[in-house]
Amino acid sequence: MRAAKYIGEGRIEVGDAEPRLPGEGEVRIRVAFNGICGTDLHIVQGHMDARVEMPATIGHEMSGVVESVGEGVDLPVGTQVTVMPLRWCGECAACLAGHQHICQRLDFVGIDSPGALQELWTVPASIVVPIPDGVSLEHAALVEPLAVAVHDVRRSRLEAGETAVVIGGGPIGQLIAVVARAAGATVILAEPDAARRAFAEQQGAIAVDPIGGDLAAVVEERTGGAGADVVFEVAGTRGTALDATRHARTRGRVVFVAIHPEPVPVDLHRIFWRELEVLGARVYEREDFERAIELLAAGAVPAEALITRVVALDDTMEAFDALLSAAAMKILVDVQGAHA
Amino acid sequence: MRAAKYIGEGRIEVGDAEPRLPGEGEVRIRVAFNGICGTDLHIVQGHMDARVEMPATIGHEMSGVVESVGEGVDLPVGTQVTVMPLRWCGECAACLAGHQHICQRLDFVGIDSPGALQELWTVPASIVVPIPDGVSLEHAALVEPLAVAVHDVRRSRLEAGETAVVIGGGPIGQLIAVVARAAGATVILAEPDAARRAFAEQQGAIAVDPIGGDLAAVVEERTGGAGADVVFEVAGTRGTALDATRHARTRGRVVFVAIHPEPVPVDLHRIFWRELEVLGARVYEREDFERAIELLAAGAVPAEALITRVVALDDTMEAFDALLSAAAMKILVDVQGAHA
Repeated sequence: MRAAKYIGEGRIEVGDAEPRLPGEGEVRIRVAFNGICGTDLHIVQGHMDARVEMPATIGHEMSGVVESVGEGVDLPVGTQVTVMPLRWCGECAACLAGHQHICQRLDFVGIDSPGALQELWTVPASIVVPIPDGVSLEHAALVEPLAVAVHDVRRSRLEAGETAVVIGGGPIGQLIAVVARAAGATVILAEPDAARRAFAEQQGAIAVDPIGGDLAAVVEERTGGAGADVVFEVAGTRGTALDATRHARTRGRVVFVAIHPEPVPVDLHRIFWRELEVLGARVYEREDFERAIELLAAGAVPAEALITRVVALDDTMEAFDALLSAAAMKILVDVQGAHA
Repeated sequence: MRAAKYIGEGRIEVGDAEPRLPGEGEVRIRVAFNGICGTDLHIVQGHMDARVEMPATIGHEMSGVVESVGEGVDLPVGTQVTVMPLRWCGECAACLAGHQHICQRLDFVGIDSPGALQELWTVPASIVVPIPDGVSLEHAALVEPLAVAVHDVRRSRLEAGETAVVIGGGPIGQLIAVVARAAGATVILAEPDAARRAFAEQQGAIAVDPIGGDLAAVVEERTGGAGADVVFEVAGTRGTALDATRHARTRGRVVFVAIHPEPVPVDLHRIFWRELEVLGARVYEREDFERAIELLAAGAVPAEALITRVVALDDTMEAFDALLSAAAMKILVDVQGAHA
């Protein structure tokens, strides 16, 4: 079979690899599509070389079909599936407290262990999630990032009738806006790129240019001076981290979704003054995956519009180059398309 | 009557003043004791000159006895009382949402309007809180700072059997430790001053020197590697703001109690990684006052030990000098003692 591998120094190599037979409790998936995530970009840019064992088959936003199963697995061959790429230890304090998704020894599949950028992928049956027939395999590759957004919104306890500010209109910001709208909230999305603002507006959000426009004024006006019930910081800059707390109402919730590798200045005075609640949100739980699938099946997600482009496995490096150079939304790798 | 007034340039002047008759809905209190708060120190150091109208009669941690009442007030003369020094507008978004204590136009009595460092103090009956006979007037002057601690602990949702880390062993840190212990929690208090550590230990806390010792190691050991359920940051330094998130377990709560006037670096990665919850906490609500009085009445608070010294009203400036130069806990001004 063919597999794409990160080999360091910004390079992805596509070559032959030996597929692994499914052992007891395992499933072998014929991978259909794999979306490229911001984390994958970080890996290929070398930011995570200390964590990733090279050559590394990465990829964790995927869809596929069950190709074969190992002993003890009751899942029909041919079932459409995705994978929730988390493996936990079951023994650490986080696991014992019921927070397995943030296990203190978490194996994030596709980063810490082999991922989906290969034609045949063998994984534990416990992390395989069936996809209903009404959802196409292309769209099913969006379940994982959508589950991130579902988890972020669930952490925020956003309710119908509330107002959410989403800072940053990349794929995750847009998905958060979609999930928040589906929850019945008014969404104000701040994004400097005009095309991304237009995308958000098509999904029913109020889009604001935080550079040319005045986000604070829009939030004030739309909330009668109160501030937003929830703010999602999805841009990941020092400026937006500092600004995020400013837009929340008294006792409002601020969810830091973007990853800030280094400590950055935060307005603790505002957090004190308005008794804000700041929430960390990381990955997802099984119910977030289920809810993401429901939303896709219900047609609540603009899946077609989110998928900017599909490339063949042999062109995986092109997908990375395109994402690094232009404001594409999702680019999928058609993993079986390698032979096309 | 006599009154102490902040007149700017680090100075308090004690002189004669005209008492005000209680109008409709008002109560005139013969002030007994007034504790000096960290905020009062900031005022006298000139840090809040832009907010405080001079000459300013400050003071908001007080006890006294009803001297006379205005029309429509049903409170017997002679009743022991304290004051919850918050006046809200009732009309802003925070008030309408039920968060009057953090009203967007809050009048903090004793800062934004005249306070208790005067022999006769006239205030609205709505902010007067009766004190049961079993609590002495000296101890009753601790109700306000104790209510701060009660509010902080309530915001944290600390439960019996949980572990709390308190960073900073000044008066508020010690009171938080006392309230947390009363709630059935194990308390680890970090404080570089040996006398303050000894104080915390006498109250049943595990005291750690964060400079000579290893707070992280103690927290790890005491929680089986999980981290604390709740962390209270009460020290207010850049270092402790950065460190606070480190000691919380997955999904743990971190309450920033200390005031950080300027943005400071916060470890957003840790908040993300462990899905922490950061809570702002400011002043108190009426139920916090009631709970503080209950705790004092029940003898759960080491009131005697907390009161380092009592000075006469004429010596108010001495109280400030002593607090600025030494690690005293609470210094009370005996307001009627001015004539002694």
